[in-house]
Amino acid sequence: MGGVGILAGGGPLPAQVAEAARAQGRSVFIIGFDGFAEPEQLAPWPHEMVRLGAAGRMLSLLHTHKCSDLVLIGPIRRPSLRSLCPDTEGARILARLGRALFAGDDGLLAALVRILGEEGFTVRGAHEFLSAAVAQPGILGCVAPDSLARQDIQRGIEVVQALGCLDIGQGCVVQNGLVLAVEAMEGTDRMLARAGECHQPGAGGVLVKLLKPGQDKRADMPTIGPSTLRNASKAGLRGVAFEAANTLMTDRDGCIAEADKAGLFLIAIDPTHFAV
Amino acid sequence: MGGVGILAGGGPLPAQVAEAARAQGRSVFIIGFDGFAEPEQLAPWPHEMVRLGAAGRMLSLLHTHKCSDLVLIGPIRRPSLRSLCPDTEGARILARLGRALFAGDDGLLAALVRILGEEGFTVRGAHEFLSAAVAQPGILGCVAPDSLARQDIQRGIEVVQALGCLDIGQGCVVQNGLVLAVEAMEGTDRMLARAGECHQPGAGGVLVKLLKPGQDKRADMPTIGPSTLRNASKAGLRGVAFEAANTLMTDRDGCIAEADKAGLFLIAIDPTHFAV
Repeated sequence: MGGVGILAGGGPLPAQVAEAARAQGRSVFIIGFDGFAEPEQLAPWPHEMVRLGAAGRMLSLLHTHKCSDLVLIGPIRRPSLRSLCPDTEGARILARLGRALFAGDDGLLAALVRILGEEGFTVRGAHEFLSAAVAQPGILGCVAPDSLARQDIQRGIEVVQALGCLDIGQGCVVQNGLVLAVEAMEGTDRMLARAGECHQPGAGGVLVKLLKPGQDKRADMPTIGPSTLRNASKAGLRGVAFEAANTLMTDRDGCIAEADKAGLFLIAIDPTHFAV
Repeated sequence: MGGVGILAGGGPLPAQVAEAARAQGRSVFIIGFDGFAEPEQLAPWPHEMVRLGAAGRMLSLLHTHKCSDLVLIGPIRRPSLRSLCPDTEGARILARLGRALFAGDDGLLAALVRILGEEGFTVRGAHEFLSAAVAQPGILGCVAPDSLARQDIQRGIEVVQALGCLDIGQGCVVQNGLVLAVEAMEGTDRMLARAGECHQPGAGGVLVKLLKPGQDKRADMPTIGPSTLRNASKAGLRGVAFEAANTLMTDRDGCIAEADKAGLFLIAIDPTHFAV
């Protein structure tokens, strides 16, 4: 069994995966994507920062460090093809991605996972290492959603699943049955800010985040952290519902503390068995 | 045949409906919604500004001015129930709206049209008066969409129809098959601004606007004006596709002039018969 190679975007999760892999006795090497990975997060670990387009350099590092398994973790923004400046290997991979370059994120990431598999690596999901970061269904924290909030969660599930089938986004904000905002490329935090502006004071509102139907969990799993709760509170919402087993929490205790402090509910749901 | 009562939100369309109705020999009275209707637009016409919640005052004005037909036209924002301060008649109508108050815009407007019908009025669509503002399928202006843009239009049709089935929004922005932004409560102009920030320079991008499947054309028809073209251009898009026969153009010549000036295509499409 070789080492674990971590292809790292932003945030604290790449280092958490490294820690969990090492705790399992695996060796670890992190490739930090230039402009996305946070050097201070990677500093304690063997790592190198690499441009997104430098696929040749990445593959050679992964082979040098005898990585057999790969984890893609941490947000990156889809770069423009023009800014990518691929090296020779990068150009070869771009050619193999072909039409997937113009697909939604799922299509692109699924193609990337397939190609990395063809290169001899086993691509694993971050959730396979971070089992503590994945919640079972149930209420976290002290506040429970009331029946109005549960109806909004139900409507949010319908909306996000319909969007997800189109490979668009993973989230929406619902208030009293009304869809205030829907997430596409801008990300959850910007959607929350927008929802806050359309939001009617005192009238509820929930953020719903789910895995897209059919989405490969090995790339771009929904993620929430304390800042998600802070932004939901700023937007005037009453709580956050996310998919149990299919969402990574960057800081579980911190999420619960923020929810309790703001009086928000935080609930992990199974969307196929959610009852109002 | 009585007069035409116009319940007016913002923009130039209420006055255009008044002009078209008078040209048909009808008398006209405009009720401008406080905070939304633009007094300078209504000034040439018999009108009164009324709070949204003052339904009693509205009905009494419509009866005094012998209006038999009503047109709801021009954008308003959904008010909070708290800010509505309904008069006695307003409270009675709110009670009749009941659960529709918590529906999407279509649900709410359909209920309102039904209640106005029960009050003895015939609710008409603005498009019945403004036939010149409604385009037949085809390219307006000098620029035609290329095959990449036509593929993006096709993807946008799928997305907006799926959203529309959920009574969410009427528009989205697609670039090279990727959905950059999806419209919910924030409106088209804000969606365009957001899409501009996720947009990859030089790589296309279209705005697609459609009537929601099953939407009543008598309320909240999709509308485009010269500012839509200006904002699409600022966002770096290559063109705008809108539903023929089901979109109001506030200023047809102005839209075409803006499109030509910016080198954008402007195309009226039939979404059920659009061919890439």
